[in-house]
Amino acid sequence: MIGLSSYAGVMESLMNSAEEQQPSSPLANSWSKKQESSKNQKPKSVGGFVLVHAGAGYHSESKAKEYKHVCKRACQRAVDQLKAGALAVEAVAAALVELEDSPFTNAGMGSNLNLSGEIECDASIMDGKSLHYGAVGSISGIKNPVLVANRLLSEAQKGKLSAGRIPPCFLVGRGAHDWAVSHGIPPCLSEKMFSLSAYKRNKRKMELAEKMDTGHNQTKKRRQSSENVSILLLENGSGCLDTVGAVVVDLEGNVAAAVSSGGLAMKHSGRVGQAAHYGCGCWAENACNMNPYSTAVSTSGCGEHLIRTMLARECSAAMQSEDAHQALLEAMQNKFISSPFLASEDRVLGGVIVLRCCRCVEAPPSQNIQGILVEFLWSHTTESMCVGYMSAQDSKAKTHISRLPPGTVPGQSLAIEGGVCRLMSVVE
Amino acid sequence: MIGLSSYAGVMESLMNSAEEQQPSSPLANSWSKKQESSKNQKPKSVGGFVLVHAGAGYHSESKAKEYKHVCKRACQRAVDQLKAGALAVEAVAAALVELEDSPFTNAGMGSNLNLSGEIECDASIMDGKSLHYGAVGSISGIKNPVLVANRLLSEAQKGKLSAGRIPPCFLVGRGAHDWAVSHGIPPCLSEKMFSLSAYKRNKRKMELAEKMDTGHNQTKKRRQSSENVSILLLENGSGCLDTVGAVVVDLEGNVAAAVSSGGLAMKHSGRVGQAAHYGCGCWAENACNMNPYSTAVSTSGCGEHLIRTMLARECSAAMQSEDAHQALLEAMQNKFISSPFLASEDRVLGGVIVLRCCRCVEAPPSQNIQGILVEFLWSHTTESMCVGYMSAQDSKAKTHISRLPPGTVPGQSLAIEGGVCRLMSVVE
Repeated sequence: MIGLSSYAGVMESLMNSAEEQQPSSPLANSWSKKQESSKNQKPKSVGGFVLVHAGAGYHSESKAKEYKHVCKRACQRAVDQLKAGALAVEAVAAALVELEDSPFTNAGMGSNLNLSGEIECDASIMDGKSLHYGAVGSISGIKNPVLVANRLLSEAQKGKLSAGRIPPCFLVGRGAHDWAVSHGIPPCLSEKMFSLSAYKRNKRKMELAEKMDTGHNQTKKRRQSSENVSILLLENGSGCLDTVGAVVVDLEGNVAAAVSSGGLAMKHSGRVGQAAHYGCGCWAENACNMNPYSTAVSTSGCGEHLIRTMLARECSAAMQSEDAHQALLEAMQNKFISSPFLASEDRVLGGVIVLRCCRCVEAPPSQNIQGILVEFLWSHTTESMCVGYMSAQDSKAKTHISRLPPGTVPGQSLAIEGGVCRLMSVVE
Repeated sequence: MIGLSSYAGVMESLMNSAEEQQPSSPLANSWSKKQESSKNQKPKSVGGFVLVHAGAGYHSESKAKEYKHVCKRACQRAVDQLKAGALAVEAVAAALVELEDSPFTNAGMGSNLNLSGEIECDASIMDGKSLHYGAVGSISGIKNPVLVANRLLSEAQKGKLSAGRIPPCFLVGRGAHDWAVSHGIPPCLSEKMFSLSAYKRNKRKMELAEKMDTGHNQTKKRRQSSENVSILLLENGSGCLDTVGAVVVDLEGNVAAAVSSGGLAMKHSGRVGQAAHYGCGCWAENACNMNPYSTAVSTSGCGEHLIRTMLARECSAAMQSEDAHQALLEAMQNKFISSPFLASEDRVLGGVIVLRCCRCVEAPPSQNIQGILVEFLWSHTTESMCVGYMSAQDSKAKTHISRLPPGTVPGQSLAIEGGVCRLMSVVE
């Protein structure tokens, strides 16, 4: 296993290798808080920053271009919203719609199929300003599950229903579908959403695995899975683990986070993963009296591992420490890989994207310039993780497939990278 | 609002007023850690302790007897299991089955109906020894949802499924029902589970409330509910809030917790409340290197409030402080009533039962006696909460309907009570 200290100096070099990196970008290409080039840019009154992921899992080189492309488009969608004056929660939902609409990601249109050959999706969204939250689990026949989660959030913000009933924050299954339709979200035929070839491929692999299990040990046929076949299943290009998500900060400093997933391939019908679980799939909290930083987190990976460790909330809480990089490193190591909640697991598979922000003032007050310092990070224990990020002031998305260092073991080691961005605006 | 300090001395006097209290009981009738009468009892090698609740909500005097009776029976069921050598997690499931089988509680057989007139249940269970967890949400047609949650937990403990698939910890809806039946849990016709009179009563009240809302303000008809009618709905005897739950410690010091609910009356189909939500409905953690105490928590009340504050886990974490009573008081005040996550709520409705345990040795080692000090508490912001508790060494259940002090406001004030029990056993 890679020790905690081994990664302390890695971020800078990895950041430098990120694809499509532009030296003139306001996104600093170093973790250290050295002077960014923000003073050379013209401050604007609209802006913000978005970081998205197309999953922690295994991203084949052959599909790298598609993964990066969808991340880029998702960043653009969020930034379009931010430029139009949208709040963080609206921008993060827009990014998720783009990620869900891609056939390459395991969410919305490209979702994995369950054992019955159906698509059942999980999604959730959290607004760091109001601390409201909305989630749907095991929902079928809706093209963009995140829009249902977002609608639950906004309905809950309006207050009580008739007869003093409290509006729901979490709906599942048929009831979630019906609620969505009754709130103007159009249904979508399930057969329009899935790829039959992906289903057949997964089904064939599972049948092969079942046979190998049976041959291997008749008495323990269900439990003692073949390591090779399970790796095949986990690492196939169509993806078991590539949940999608995004985190956003707007120019007012509000943060929001969202996540969406088609769930594990060949899951049992009705299985709900971390993407619909409060505290596990995403988390967003604006700074307050007790917390100096606004934080937003979105997770990806093995749902049960992410649920039982409540990874989104744990990472958010950890980010109140002074050194964001060290805090995330320790959280991933101590609260995930070495978590007592996963002591019986041989491989702990997951990844996170994280934003943390605080106000900063570089220019003298007379210039009416205010700024937000945005630190953004990603970390994963899976083979790879695909991320993209973009500042509304720069309008150029960067994308990157992060991989574990050569020779390290997925589920037992981690990669961690990130950067810094400074958002400047004129105070009216 | 009642200040924090106002309750510091209340527990002792309230404990003394608990019904059916026996002075000869091993359950001390004082919170302070003064000498208990345990030395006069004959140590046994089997034992344990159970604390149950029949919900935080409003318990009418007219039905007090039934509520207490079901708590008593639930305690007895858990103790029967403990005496037979069962672990805490098995005993807590047995208590829940009894609570679910009562037509007076909002769980299993007595569940509230949703807007469509159907029963959809939530339940979860957590084992403090393995830290495994199982949950079902929005499940229909199963008499004892907690048994499905418990089966999910035990299946997950067996390790991976074929093809390296990770077993689910949370299933919902039809998929949960089908999984249960395929694992030998018999289905139950929904019409056998509900009371039509309770449905009609609730439906009538909601229609009345809708009319009053409409008349009151046409433009805001859905939001501005009539306070009077909402109180009627919340406080009717059939119960909106009376989720059930239990916490158990066995003689090895293992803790477990479980919770089960029919959900809010007139909820939308597919709505999942705290009872199926990890960290919100129940929590159990054995002592470990970092935590000197084993803790178990089960919650009841308004599901959305309990989800958004993750009350079970927050209370569990708080109980690692030295003074259990003060820790719970502060957790209920700061993490629930005054939680920033519920800043927009006028009334924050919920209750918890809590166990915390640590090993203690009173007798010299030569006598081979070891003991477990059990502190048990309950606290609620609702009008009332019905609890029962029992030691396997005493075999006499105590039951109690705790009420807010006169003149205090539900949702803004709290009651807190509890006691101490010492379990002694011969070391073999």
